[in-house]
Amino acid sequence: MKTLLIKQARICGRETDVLVENGKIARIEKGMKAKADKTIDGRGKVILPGFYNLHTHAAMTLLRGYAEDMELEDWLTKKIWPAEAKFNEDDIYWGTKLACLEMIKSGTVCFNDMYWHQEAALQAVTETGMRAFIGLTMIDGHPLGFHQDTNEVWEKIKNKQTDKIKFALAPHALYTVAEENLKWAARFAKVNNLLIHFHVSETEKEVDDCQKKYGLRPIEFLDKIGFLGPEVILAHSIWLAEKEIEILVKRKCHLVYNPTSNMKLSSGVMSFSRLKKGGINICLGTDSASSNNNLDMIEEMKLAAVLQKLANGQDIKVKDIFAAATRNGARALRLEGGIVKEGQTADFILIDTERLDFLPGFDLLNDLVFSASSECVDTVVCGGDVLMENREIKGEKELIGEIKKRYGRYPSPRD
Amino acid sequence: MKTLLIKQARICGRETDVLVENGKIARIEKGMKAKADKTIDGRGKVILPGFYNLHTHAAMTLLRGYAEDMELEDWLTKKIWPAEAKFNEDDIYWGTKLACLEMIKSGTVCFNDMYWHQEAALQAVTETGMRAFIGLTMIDGHPLGFHQDTNEVWEKIKNKQTDKIKFALAPHALYTVAEENLKWAARFAKVNNLLIHFHVSETEKEVDDCQKKYGLRPIEFLDKIGFLGPEVILAHSIWLAEKEIEILVKRKCHLVYNPTSNMKLSSGVMSFSRLKKGGINICLGTDSASSNNNLDMIEEMKLAAVLQKLANGQDIKVKDIFAAATRNGARALRLEGGIVKEGQTADFILIDTERLDFLPGFDLLNDLVFSASSECVDTVVCGGDVLMENREIKGEKELIGEIKKRYGRYPSPRD
Repeated sequence: MKTLLIKQARICGRETDVLVENGKIARIEKGMKAKADKTIDGRGKVILPGFYNLHTHAAMTLLRGYAEDMELEDWLTKKIWPAEAKFNEDDIYWGTKLACLEMIKSGTVCFNDMYWHQEAALQAVTETGMRAFIGLTMIDGHPLGFHQDTNEVWEKIKNKQTDKIKFALAPHALYTVAEENLKWAARFAKVNNLLIHFHVSETEKEVDDCQKKYGLRPIEFLDKIGFLGPEVILAHSIWLAEKEIEILVKRKCHLVYNPTSNMKLSSGVMSFSRLKKGGINICLGTDSASSNNNLDMIEEMKLAAVLQKLANGQDIKVKDIFAAATRNGARALRLEGGIVKEGQTADFILIDTERLDFLPGFDLLNDLVFSASSECVDTVVCGGDVLMENREIKGEKELIGEIKKRYGRYPSPRD
Repeated sequence: MKTLLIKQARICGRETDVLVENGKIARIEKGMKAKADKTIDGRGKVILPGFYNLHTHAAMTLLRGYAEDMELEDWLTKKIWPAEAKFNEDDIYWGTKLACLEMIKSGTVCFNDMYWHQEAALQAVTETGMRAFIGLTMIDGHPLGFHQDTNEVWEKIKNKQTDKIKFALAPHALYTVAEENLKWAARFAKVNNLLIHFHVSETEKEVDDCQKKYGLRPIEFLDKIGFLGPEVILAHSIWLAEKEIEILVKRKCHLVYNPTSNMKLSSGVMSFSRLKKGGINICLGTDSASSNNNLDMIEEMKLAAVLQKLANGQDIKVKDIFAAATRNGARALRLEGGIVKEGQTADFILIDTERLDFLPGFDLLNDLVFSASSECVDTVVCGGDVLMENREIKGEKELIGEIKKRYGRYPSPRD
């Protein structure tokens, strides 16, 4: 039995010890007399749940800064898809690994990914110790993925899932996957008990095009073809009419708010407050490093909060945003995580609050969301494994060297 | 003569040495054979201009997280002003010092401040080595400042200005300073050759109230009373009609964009693109740590950029935002800074690009603005003085201890 002991850290303002056994939080108790395989000094640190990043395309870290100052459609069709078509398995491995380290560094324990070459991604994630859902991406006519292949890929890799890493089905979007393939995906997901990860209603144009093509708004159409259910995680979900929100409530879909990407690509603003009132589970995601351009959930929480305050007033509070970044994500992924309590999965982080950005300290969550830099994340524990300690990740320096050697582009004329 | 030598850092993609003499960049040359009082190894680092934060209320770091989830008017009148009325000189000293260290830590070399107890602020800034303009704040009927006092304060402190620290005149806003006092301020600033630092058109309500009171929109009214000129720095400037923009162009006023504060207080979005087309000098500011809630100009650049992309499409580029954060600010403050070249003031920073967030490195400015955490700032030089080296600021740990002792509030029930 593998054990980990955190000594004298704070939870909810009180100093306590935390004992982890076999990947679960076994006991939370002050001054515990326990021995463990590894002990971490938690003095001056606060224990919080780690972040669940519910919408990523991890390997696109390799395209960070590659296509700038563009709106979604041009950005995708003129720059991103042609570049992606050249990626091979090796690229996916290195890009995913870079993404994982960046996510760990900013306190993320788990991500929900949509990309290609799933075996290479699986390899990269496994090596970092993170938790992930790796999407089997479907795009009609894409050189690498359409639904016939998905079946083959699934048959080949389905037994490679681990405790931490699962596969999900990821049809790309309404404008890239035909009706019959979406129906196929819905059936396939149900038969194989897979989560579905999908982009929807990211731009107003997407809604217009759907209405022209199908005579229905996106969510109405998806409901009509039987695509929606509690296994469905919908990224973006910006341009929703009232009747669509009612469908989403009824079908118990999970939504992912991606504020930075939505701002950067001029897409729009999710109606968080309205959706929350309907009782919809809203999660948080960074989207990819080529439309963000990082994978930092602490920064994402800040943008999430201030964007809602700009667009919809002061209705959405810090606790809503923190929940979206932690337990709501775990819930959508059907994980026992996102809360630090006995019996839960040991997916947590230690935050260093002995810093300028946590002073004077009126409220920890406010300081974390609005003030803190992700540099405050000191230690990351995922399923009981210590992925980072004192801001050090094993192999980080070597990875930076390797990525620089393979993909590095500095110095450029503008630096 | 005090000298500083940076060896083998990169400027515009090329490795070079930089020699600083008496606070100025004396020479930029590869493989320089110079001796200096202090030498810094710049390998793996990029030299960039430091940031000029053009709108702050530094000591309000002590109110970080104190008043959350409120719009501007309630936030000011119900929470902030009553709290500020209790601040004494000591509070201003410690609050300003905390702000300075936070700013240095994220690469800021200079700030334009509006607050009270100017001598205490001067003392704090002097000790940190930063450059600053300290505003003589005027609010009618405020317990601490109205225009009769400003004259007295000015007489008492005007000879205390240093090479790095100047005073400016800071009438608060149209809704807090009466017409005759604004006229007095404009004359006083001209006679004493002072910059003016002012809040304007931050909310739609402010514009409506001004129209009711004076029958004119804010900028029209200010122009009518002779308030506007090239010495005027206008924070926020969100709700501007076309005819007001024309006045601002004619009067050569400088504007400060404060995206985070404007979002967080539900105020609105500056029309950066339209203002830039008019040739107006637009600077960047964080506003205070109680409406942001930090003073990190790297984060502010990201919010500045993505907010413009959301509101106004892809017109504003990274280089516009970077200019706003650096040389535009220096220009408004009439400083020879914001550019790294021979003859300029030695206000620059060294960025560590050997990090995950700068990979693969398509473009340094894009990576800095959209991807980087302020943790990338390694070294800060202001007027030739090294304020931070290898992320270490002299006295940071002691300051954290002192602020915690005096103002610290953790643990709170919610952390």
